[in-house]
Amino acid sequence: MPVNKYLNLIRPLINTKRTKEILLVNPTIIPVRQEAEKTVISIFDYNGTELKEFAVQHIVDCFECKDNNHITWINIEGLRKQDVESIGQHFGIHYLLVEDILSIGQRPKVDEIDGILFCLLNMLYFNEETSSVETEQISIALGKGFLISFQEDADRDVFDTLRARLRVANTKLRQSGADYLCYSLLDMIVDHYYLVLEKLGERIELLEEDIARFNDSRSLARINNMRKEMIVLKRNVAPVRDMVSNIIRSESELLQESTTKYFKDVYDHIMQANELVESYRDMMTSLQDLYLNKVNLKMNEVMKVLAIVTCLLAPATVIGGIFGMNFDIIPLTHQRKGFYIAVILMIIIPIGMLVMFKKRGWFKQSV
Amino acid sequence: MPVNKYLNLIRPLINTKRTKEILLVNPTIIPVRQEAEKTVISIFDYNGTELKEFAVQHIVDCFECKDNNHITWINIEGLRKQDVESIGQHFGIHYLLVEDILSIGQRPKVDEIDGILFCLLNMLYFNEETSSVETEQISIALGKGFLISFQEDADRDVFDTLRARLRVANTKLRQSGADYLCYSLLDMIVDHYYLVLEKLGERIELLEEDIARFNDSRSLARINNMRKEMIVLKRNVAPVRDMVSNIIRSESELLQESTTKYFKDVYDHIMQANELVESYRDMMTSLQDLYLNKVNLKMNEVMKVLAIVTCLLAPATVIGGIFGMNFDIIPLTHQRKGFYIAVILMIIIPIGMLVMFKKRGWFKQSV
Amino acid sequence: MPVNKYLNLIRPLINTKRTKEILLVNPTIIPVRQEAEKTVISIFDYNGTELKEFAVQHIVDCFECKDNNHITWINIEGLRKQDVESIGQHFGIHYLLVEDILSIGQRPKVDEIDGILFCLLNMLYFNEETSSVETEQISIALGKGFLISFQEDADRDVFDTLRARLRVANTKLRQSGADYLCYSLLDMIVDHYYLVLEKLGERIELLEEDIARFNDSRSLARINNMRKEMIVLKRNVAPVRDMVSNIIRSESELLQESTTKYFKDVYDHIMQANELVESYRDMMTSLQDLYLNKVNLKMNEVMKVLAIVTCLLAPATVIGGIFGMNFDIIPLTHQRKGFYIAVILMIIIPIGMLVMFKKRGWFKQSV
Amino acid sequence: MPVNKYLNLIRPLINTKRTKEILLVNPTIIPVRQEAEKTVISIFDYNGTELKEFAVQHIVDCFECKDNNHITWINIEGLRKQDVESIGQHFGIHYLLVEDILSIGQRPKVDEIDGILFCLLNMLYFNEETSSVETEQISIALGKGFLISFQEDADRDVFDTLRARLRVANTKLRQSGADYLCYSLLDMIVDHYYLVLEKLGERIELLEEDIARFNDSRSLARINNMRKEMIVLKRNVAPVRDMVSNIIRSESELLQESTTKYFKDVYDHIMQANELVESYRDMMTSLQDLYLNKVNLKMNEVMKVLAIVTCLLAPATVIGGIFGMNFDIIPLTHQRKGFYIAVILMIIIPIGMLVMFKKRGWFKQSV
Amino acid sequence: MPVNKYLNLIRPLINTKRTKEILLVNPTIIPVRQEAEKTVISIFDYNGTELKEFAVQHIVDCFECKDNNHITWINIEGLRKQDVESIGQHFGIHYLLVEDILSIGQRPKVDEIDGILFCLLNMLYFNEETSSVETEQISIALGKGFLISFQEDADRDVFDTLRARLRVANTKLRQSGADYLCYSLLDMIVDHYYLVLEKLGERIELLEEDIARFNDSRSLARINNMRKEMIVLKRNVAPVRDMVSNIIRSESELLQESTTKYFKDVYDHIMQANELVESYRDMMTSLQDLYLNKVNLKMNEVMKVLAIVTCLLAPATVIGGIFGMNFDIIPLTHQRKGFYIAVILMIIIPIGMLVMFKKRGWFKQSV
Ligand SMILES: [Mg+2]
Ligand SMILES: [Mg+2]
Ligand SMILES: [Mg+2]
Ligand SMILES: [Mg+2]
Ligand SMILES: [Mg+2]
Ligand SMILES: [Mg+2]
Ligand SMILES: [Mg+2]
Ligand SMILES: [Mg+2]
Ligand SMILES: [Mg+2]
Ligand SMILES: [Mg+2]
Ligand SMILES: [Mg+2]
Ligand SMILES: [Mg+2]
Ligand SMILES: [Mg+2]
Ligand SMILES: [Mg+2]
Ligand SMILES: [Mg+2]
Ligand SMILES: [Mg+2]
Ligand SMILES: [Mg+2]
Ligand SMILES: [Mg+2]
Ligand SMILES: [Mg+2]
Ligand SMILES: [Mg+2]
Ligand SMILES: [Mg+2]
Ligand SMILES: [Mg+2]
Ligand SMILES: [Mg+2]
Ligand SMILES: [Mg+2]
Ligand SMILES: [Mg+2]
Ligand SMILES: [Mg+2]
Ligand SMILES: [Mg+2]
Ligand SMILES: [Mg+2]
Ligand SMILES: [Mg+2]
Ligand SMILES: [Mg+2]
Ligand SMILES: [Mg+2]
Repeated sequence: MPVNKYLNLIRPLINTKRTKEILLVNPTIIPVRQEAEKTVISIFDYNGTELKEFAVQHIVDCFECKDNNHITWINIEGLRKQDVESIGQHFGIHYLLVEDILSIGQRPKVDEIDGILFCLLNMLYFNEETSSVETEQISIALGKGFLISFQEDADRDVFDTLRARLRVANTKLRQSGADYLCYSLLDMIVDHYYLVLEKLGERIELLEEDIARFNDSRSLARINNMRKEMIVLKRNVAPVRDMVSNIIRSESELLQESTTKYFKDVYDHIMQANELVESYRDMMTSLQDLYLNKVNLKMNEVMKVLAIVTCLLAPATVIGGIFGMNFDIIPLTHQRKGFYIAVILMIIIPIGMLVMFKKRGWFKQSV
Repeated sequence: MPVNKYLNLIRPLINTKRTKEILLVNPTIIPVRQEAEKTVISIFDYNGTELKEFAVQHIVDCFECKDNNHITWINIEGLRKQDVESIGQHFGIHYLLVEDILSIGQRPKVDEIDGILFCLLNMLYFNEETSSVETEQISIALGKGFLISFQEDADRDVFDTLRARLRVANTKLRQSGADYLCYSLLDMIVDHYYLVLEKLGERIELLEEDIARFNDSRSLARINNMRKEMIVLKRNVAPVRDMVSNIIRSESELLQESTTKYFKDVYDHIMQANELVESYRDMMTSLQDLYLNKVNLKMNEVMKVLAIVTCLLAPATVIGGIFGMNFDIIPLTHQRKGFYIAVILMIIIPIGMLVMFKKRGWFKQSV
Repeated sequence: MPVNKYLNLIRPLINTKRTKEILLVNPTIIPVRQEAEKTVISIFDYNGTELKEFAVQHIVDCFECKDNNHITWINIEGLRKQDVESIGQHFGIHYLLVEDILSIGQRPKVDEIDGILFCLLNMLYFNEETSSVETEQISIALGKGFLISFQEDADRDVFDTLRARLRVANTKLRQSGADYLCYSLLDMIVDHYYLVLEKLGERIELLEEDIARFNDSRSLARINNMRKEMIVLKRNVAPVRDMVSNIIRSESELLQESTTKYFKDVYDHIMQANELVESYRDMMTSLQDLYLNKVNLKMNEVMKVLAIVTCLLAPATVIGGIFGMNFDIIPLTHQRKGFYIAVILMIIIPIGMLVMFKKRGWFKQSV
Repeated sequence: MPVNKYLNLIRPLINTKRTKEILLVNPTIIPVRQEAEKTVISIFDYNGTELKEFAVQHIVDCFECKDNNHITWINIEGLRKQDVESIGQHFGIHYLLVEDILSIGQRPKVDEIDGILFCLLNMLYFNEETSSVETEQISIALGKGFLISFQEDADRDVFDTLRARLRVANTKLRQSGADYLCYSLLDMIVDHYYLVLEKLGERIELLEEDIARFNDSRSLARINNMRKEMIVLKRNVAPVRDMVSNIIRSESELLQESTTKYFKDVYDHIMQANELVESYRDMMTSLQDLYLNKVNLKMNEVMKVLAIVTCLLAPATVIGGIFGMNFDIIPLTHQRKGFYIAVILMIIIPIGMLVMFKKRGWFKQSV
Repeated sequence: MPVNKYLNLIRPLINTKRTKEILLVNPTIIPVRQEAEKTVISIFDYNGTELKEFAVQHIVDCFECKDNNHITWINIEGLRKQDVESIGQHFGIHYLLVEDILSIGQRPKVDEIDGILFCLLNMLYFNEETSSVETEQISIALGKGFLISFQEDADRDVFDTLRARLRVANTKLRQSGADYLCYSLLDMIVDHYYLVLEKLGERIELLEEDIARFNDSRSLARINNMRKEMIVLKRNVAPVRDMVSNIIRSESELLQESTTKYFKDVYDHIMQANELVESYRDMMTSLQDLYLNKVNLKMNEVMKVLAIVTCLLAPATVIGGIFGMNFDIIPLTHQRKGFYIAVILMIIIPIGMLVMFKKRGWFKQSV
């Protein structure tokens, strides 16, 4: 029973479905992205003093914002092939970039093609229920006077505080160009990585506590699951560092000299996020070592005690055997206290052995 | 029997023939490549509006395409030394490159010699039956107005969708030069790597599931086989990244400025393929750890239960021995319920031990 | 009992609270830094011959020092948002830097924005009681003729000898500019890293001695704790190398050519501190190997001796069983010395076995 | 006996003499190279149409070839200090290079001093008998119109096919300069590395097969020996890559622009040889893991079966003890079938236990 | 006894004092260097034809050599703060360099400050008794026409052959400048590293031989000690490579163009010394693996044989128990040969088991 029982426990814990999700990334061949059911197109059209904030139903309704003198942020949540292609055509986004926007499992990167600076990365969310990191791909196309962001789904993003800030007139954000808006988006996204890292950090602490207290029988499976999340994290965070570094070194006309320092600030944060991911990985290795060493140690102790008990009882068996032999003449057998002498021997010898074992330090725990 | 039985199972599983294939790569000394039995030479000769698609029997029949104003794609499937040398001579391919084309086990690379940009890499296929990655070397010689591709065998390649696209007039592909055709070929090849990665990913998932369910006795051999495929993958994918990166940084006159962005797109994909290979390797290490830890754990549990049973029965043996001694006077022996008292002792003591073991948490599973 | 007992020992030893501290670093989102209760603002205003040393209550009281001809060092211990922002505004420190000063868990770095050279790093202290490395973030803003340092708390820093040196007139320090002061601060901080390294080194030695003597049952937990401190060290020391290297290569007008050699001296030290951290990590890995091998070895010896004892007693049990059988005719049973012959057999056979075991070298210790 | 027996087997297998050879490399201090007993000096003096091939007895006899208009290849097999110094003086080879030629255990490198391009590397041979890699140092001094090669011993080299090619007039080789000859020598040497790699590959396959079949008791020693050969390989192959890469990037007047592509071809091969060495190392690590896991697994199975047998027999011992007690009243003892009931119990209980063990999957092999 | 006995053996072997020495390196804070008791100041003042070799008592006596036209080598053995500062002041050695000279545990480096090229590194010696690597810090200050070397202690250095060569007139050494003298010193120091490497290599061989023969019970401690020496080696040798490389790339006026090739020769040697250190580390890892695997294997064999013996005796115990039961009717008990039948059973069954074990290959050694 015990062995089978823990197998039953482990089976659902080793999350093979999660492995499937992590491994199945194919950016081009079969564009398995389904057309979004729900699409939300919201627009901020602003300068330092004026702001129009509105939503449109059809993609064509935002075309007029392209050439006005305002900064325009078109945020498209939920991707439909036709929408993306049509907006791409109107705003001069090369079809290679359109392909990137529509692809899934793309590696974070920045590129400039035909006057469009294009950033692609993933927003990360932490799913508390499954203890896993979820991703939502976001593509940002920065043009002259406009910025278009494409999100995979319409239900969530990390830009709410940015929207609030946009609604305030005459701020640095409102007075700056589209490149500053681009920085602000990246800043929000990277800042949100820390929330995810924090949640994962909490899980690692809980795991360590359980291992320290030795009161969870699923630690191995949980460690294994956590290591998978580390793979997801690393894959999403590490290339963003290169991305931001490329932006800083870029000489694009779309990026003003004075905005560089802001991107450098993002760079600081993404650098540190990367180091945190590495620390987490170190920590997980340490934890796995600790866990396995502790399991091994406990097992050793159990086997040692069992072997000692078995060994201590062996002399009694021998003595019983000696006086159980059918010889005509056996010493002590006809004496009144013979039986008790034998029994006392059976007790004294193991005690003597115990003392010897003790002396050799066999009962010292080695943790 | 059991030990021998599993050895029988393992013997065919550890695939030493595969090791032979992987290790035996010698690009120069003994050109063991056999002359192809079957050779197919197919030609696309096109510009934006016109297209001639035809096959020739003899290599000389395609010589006339060299200096026409059209773009010519000569695809040679199945390599014969004489053919390659003769076409090399006519189209100005240096004999060092001819040697590369004819060699086997060559490392992917790009080179430019005497007005020919030369790419060599491997197409990858996944053999479902043997769960192994198969390679077919492809050499691409890009000249002014022509592109010649050399494939190892005539039975398969990954260019069918490209052929279909070529047959449509006035597309970007038809209107561009030979360098764009070169990009298209590389793009097809790299895209196909993802198919192979996907298949391998599926195998890893299955393996993980088997390990989680603990229902396969050949996991160790399968892990070992999978690690060999990882070596094949890494060897073929990693140098292609350098190759594409060199093309992008190349200042060859054969590559138009405007095609660079397309090669950058290929670069994105090959970068990501590389990272996937790394993820797979991490995953395999995790899996092997998990498997060995689980085997060890299960073994520990079995030994623990056996040791406990043996230990629990030892006191009964001692009691039996005590009352089996041949002393004249042994307490209880002449009482009516003496026997039952002894037997009850034999039962109570182990139960008491069990309770103590339980209290110490020795029956807690540690997974 | 023994197993539970060591679990009780280990529980408080595996320091999950420390893990929490190490993992919980979030530089931006929730600025959890509490407003300092105690703030100390002390000022050194000097040139080669004159020195004013005074403390002010309110931040505005130091504004006048900005544009005098003296070098001014404003040291702010204990951070309050309003203070930092107000001084930032007056001295032209960009709000991105103000944000960095107020953030926690920031990665060490150097930056120059709008005529301010900004260094951020951590001072390290060793807490003898908890054997852990404590950090205090320090930000240094170097402007033209002034230097402002921001410390997290008001109770300690590492600059006392520097203050003493400042009070002596006509020294190199007093005659040089603010950049030399900046160097002196960094030099003090880095020098203090060695004190921390030294303390940690002592702990490693003690740990090794305990493992060598085998007289501590908490070595595993202590090794684990030490590995966490290594993570803290590495995280704080490694980026400082990049920071100093960036200062040396910087072409800021705030740094005089002649000060470079001093920063190079700091670079030597931070390089070496880094290598020491690496040595320590190597040492810890060696120690953990040594410890686990020794535990394993000792366990093996115990089990071997127990198995030998059990094995030696088995023949006696068999002999007892043989002469205890109830056959009518059993040899020796009716002879006078029969019993003694049996007992002697019981003794001689194990002795023979012992001799054989000895010959095979089974009693040789293998350490 | 068994333990000692395998120790006897292992002793000669762990090849400490080989370790001595690998570790004892000292390029300068004690020039332990003994003067060669046999020296062969052979000369090819050629241009496109003419060829003189001859051997000389004394080193001075080749001095006249220096300033003729032909290309001269002087191949010196077997090194004597005086010879090398005298030829060095005549041909303008700096005494630092003479030192290098005469030293042993030198690291492969290229250098240009005073108009001499100097390459030093090792030719590798595979010793089939000892399964080890043998090295012969070769130094190449390329001057204007001449090339002098110095080999350690006179019995073997890898240039026979090159000599054959030199004897054919009007080939590329004959018409080119000394730099092309230099390329040809390096090409031959590097090509020969593949032969050695191939032989080592075969040994790895055999080793894997033995491990898979589990029919060799010396696998551990053989793995250990193979790992030493990997060290030799890596040490000799890796620096040659840097050497060739330096030649390609060199701007020496001794190397014609048009020869670069040939050195690039050598570079391809040495790159790949390096990757193969890495693959071999990976493979060896996998093999060692596999072997140890299999040994451990087999051991586990043996111990499990033994423990099961011991455990199954314990209840019978207890039952025997119960009915062997000397109570006046023991149930069943006076019944006719009492004995058989007891014996049947002794058989049924272990069978019941077996069934339980089986159900828990304890007889499933886990490979 | 056995367990304690080996602990006694191990205690002095794990050299915690050595750890203390290795870890306690603090270049600045507490300058624990004690003033040298013995100081030797020896001077070589030479040009191609003239040589004055003399020793002075007081540091001031060598001041006059600074501005003569000869090359002056002042070698100071044994450091006293006052001496170093006074000579520093006279010869224009910046006080940062004086600090470096007086510091201990400094990382090897080269620096140029105010017309002084400054090299600091360690001479290595091998202590045969303790099998440890000893270091002596040497600082070299190269100025225009003079070179001052500072050694830690007066009892030993590695320059005796150099002194002999200096005494010969009209050699390259005597005719060259102070930079060539500097090269010669570095060359001597690096050459001496090989002596130390050679000695360590011998120890590794001995260790391997002992492990192969399995005749030393202190191998674990010796491996551990050796790994510490590797840390010392790596720490001292690796930065010297950077040092020499920096000298080669330096554009100091103190270094003549023509001396570069000599420093390149030193670079070759230090490169190779580095690779040797890496090889040694690989070798040590292999050795530790080998040792632990062998210990484990031997332990396994012992436990297997013991378990087999115990298991083989169990059936005899059962048979003895069966015929020892007190049933009225027990088959065979009243037959004449009954006893012998039982005993023969007791012998035959274990033999049968042995045969079965043998068939399953349980007695095959797996090394
Ligand atoms: Mg995704
Ligand atoms: Mg997504
Ligand atoms: Mg969204
Ligand atoms: Mg941020
Ligand atoms: Mg921010
Ligand atoms: Mg080639
Ligand atoms: Mg191939
Ligand atoms: Mg192929
Ligand atoms: Mg094909
Ligand atoms: Mg593609
Ligand atoms: Mg595509
Ligand atoms: Mg793309
Ligand atoms: Mg910041
Ligand atoms: Mg902090
Ligand atoms: Mg802090
Ligand atoms: Mg403070
Ligand atoms: Mg300092
Ligand atoms: Mg200092
Ligand atoms: Mg040399
Ligand atoms: Mg050699
Ligand atoms: Mg040699
Ligand atoms: Mg030779
Ligand atoms: Mg070749
Ligand atoms: Mg060739
Ligand atoms: Mg074990
Ligand atoms: Mg210094
Ligand atoms: Mg030292
Ligand atoms: Mg020293
Ligand atoms: Mg000395
Ligand atoms: Mg030397
Ligand atoms: Mg020398």
